[in-house]
Amino acid sequence: MKRCAIVILLYLPLLAEPLPSWNPGKNRDAIIGFVEKVTTPGTPDFVEPAARIATFDNDGCLWSEQPMYFQLIYAIDRIKATADEHPEWKETEPFASVLKGDTKGALAGGEKGLLKMIAATHAGMTTEEFRAAVSDWLSTARHPKTGRPYNEMIYQPMLELLEYLRENGFKTFIVSGGGIDFMRVFVEDAYGIPPEQVVGSSIAAKYEVRDGKPVLVKTLDSHFIDDKEGKPVGIHQHIGRRPIFAAGNSDGDFQMLEYTTAGDGARFAMIVHHDDADREWAYDRDSHIGKLARGLDEGPKRGWTIVSMKDEWKAIYPASE
Amino acid sequence: MKRCAIVILLYLPLLAEPLPSWNPGKNRDAIIGFVEKVTTPGTPDFVEPAARIATFDNDGCLWSEQPMYFQLIYAIDRIKATADEHPEWKETEPFASVLKGDTKGALAGGEKGLLKMIAATHAGMTTEEFRAAVSDWLSTARHPKTGRPYNEMIYQPMLELLEYLRENGFKTFIVSGGGIDFMRVFVEDAYGIPPEQVVGSSIAAKYEVRDGKPVLVKTLDSHFIDDKEGKPVGIHQHIGRRPIFAAGNSDGDFQMLEYTTAGDGARFAMIVHHDDADREWAYDRDSHIGKLARGLDEGPKRGWTIVSMKDEWKAIYPASE
Repeated sequence: MKRCAIVILLYLPLLAEPLPSWNPGKNRDAIIGFVEKVTTPGTPDFVEPAARIATFDNDGCLWSEQPMYFQLIYAIDRIKATADEHPEWKETEPFASVLKGDTKGALAGGEKGLLKMIAATHAGMTTEEFRAAVSDWLSTARHPKTGRPYNEMIYQPMLELLEYLRENGFKTFIVSGGGIDFMRVFVEDAYGIPPEQVVGSSIAAKYEVRDGKPVLVKTLDSHFIDDKEGKPVGIHQHIGRRPIFAAGNSDGDFQMLEYTTAGDGARFAMIVHHDDADREWAYDRDSHIGKLARGLDEGPKRGWTIVSMKDEWKAIYPASE
Repeated sequence: MKRCAIVILLYLPLLAEPLPSWNPGKNRDAIIGFVEKVTTPGTPDFVEPAARIATFDNDGCLWSEQPMYFQLIYAIDRIKATADEHPEWKETEPFASVLKGDTKGALAGGEKGLLKMIAATHAGMTTEEFRAAVSDWLSTARHPKTGRPYNEMIYQPMLELLEYLRENGFKTFIVSGGGIDFMRVFVEDAYGIPPEQVVGSSIAAKYEVRDGKPVLVKTLDSHFIDDKEGKPVGIHQHIGRRPIFAAGNSDGDFQMLEYTTAGDGARFAMIVHHDDADREWAYDRDSHIGKLARGLDEGPKRGWTIVSMKDEWKAIYPASE
């Protein structure tokens, strides 16, 4: 039986070339070189499988985030869908603007208005009701530009990277400013990442027994923002060890990449640069979403890999079914 | 190569009888029966491997918890070890009592005093400093009754249960009122549970860059208590799906077992009953630690399995090395 195992191990690498949607070049080589380095036993850079932790931002790193975070589009759609139950919304901001289709007006209230939208669409329901609502939305809503379901606006080259890392013994996590309960509805199907490997922003849940049935109710009693300095905090709380590989796309990921690369031994940090106005979007320093300035300025000096979507990716999204 | 796989699959069940330290009987049969039921494809109770989530309390369920929680013994030992740096402690409670060896006096201040002890021994240091301090302690401290290192006062039958579940495709998690950072120091070696599968109580961490080096500093800015109603909350936050198997030993685990068994399909809930004064400790309804009353009263009616350490376990701890 030993012979079978050896035969399998010998043929496995020949089965498929990794990262087929990545153009050949130094960045693709750098990724493959890093993975080969940390997985080759007996070398100084070898990392035990248990410590092969890879963390990925979600918005703008694994799926698109324009013209605004998809979770915000969900909140807007949800406000419209439940407006009949809330006649008072016609006279109250930010709901009145949302119902008039004036997104800019709805967002004019800043954080305070946003919090009201979250309260109306994310709190006061059980975790199971929330999951069902998001799941319904994903199955019917379509992106205004591409016409695709939102959970099909995921990046084919990143799917291949996730898979390639897992084939090499990595455990892949999402570490995102997005809502943990929101992401968990689709990430297992979309990325092959189970719910227990999702780190995200969250509002508190409260345990209650309603008519003998235990439920978790989403509340605004407290919250955690998994962004910027919050990302290493979320990683420590949830994973409990420092990643050796991290990928992001905005300055909200800076601290995650900094924390990852400050560890001993071989480390890899990667920034997806949105520079493809034809096939996706082009934005960085001046963007209201996914702003990327410090990462572009300091990343290369820190040895981080900046990936050009335009030059390095053969495809953006998976082929439509 | 297909043949090799079939041969391996056929012989695997014969390799070893599961749960060797459990006496034959209805509870051992119930555990094995449950596992066989949820892992047999094509039956109504079959559960996909990804959903085979098992959660275990730690104190009193996987290791001992008498004469007091081992983490509290750590705090007391740590106060003594660092007293030279804090001359003011000689005059301040609860430290003065700790230094006089008067544990009862130290705990007389209730929650307020306890919080001071936690502040002095768990906060104000980086996560790496804390890990090093706990690791040092585990390697030198010995339990007053058994003379064992604390991380060798783990239950042999529970180690076998964890292993048996994992062999059957379960993912095993700790869900404990104990400190998440404290447990993560030893649980991987002790139980084969990696840090990312530990859910526990926690105090907030803060991200800082000190002299160019990123650190996480443990603070008392906020905290989470992973006990009672907090356990389903911690499970949802961390794992994101409901366990199908849960084990505890005290009423602090009641809600975890209630939440677990309220899900659809086959579920298993188990309570370890400390009734073995000779080989371990005997305590339940009137205990100041690990109080178990509601679980004994309601558990059997709810179909939960009450395990007698005295009658069902052939051994308590692993054989000493």
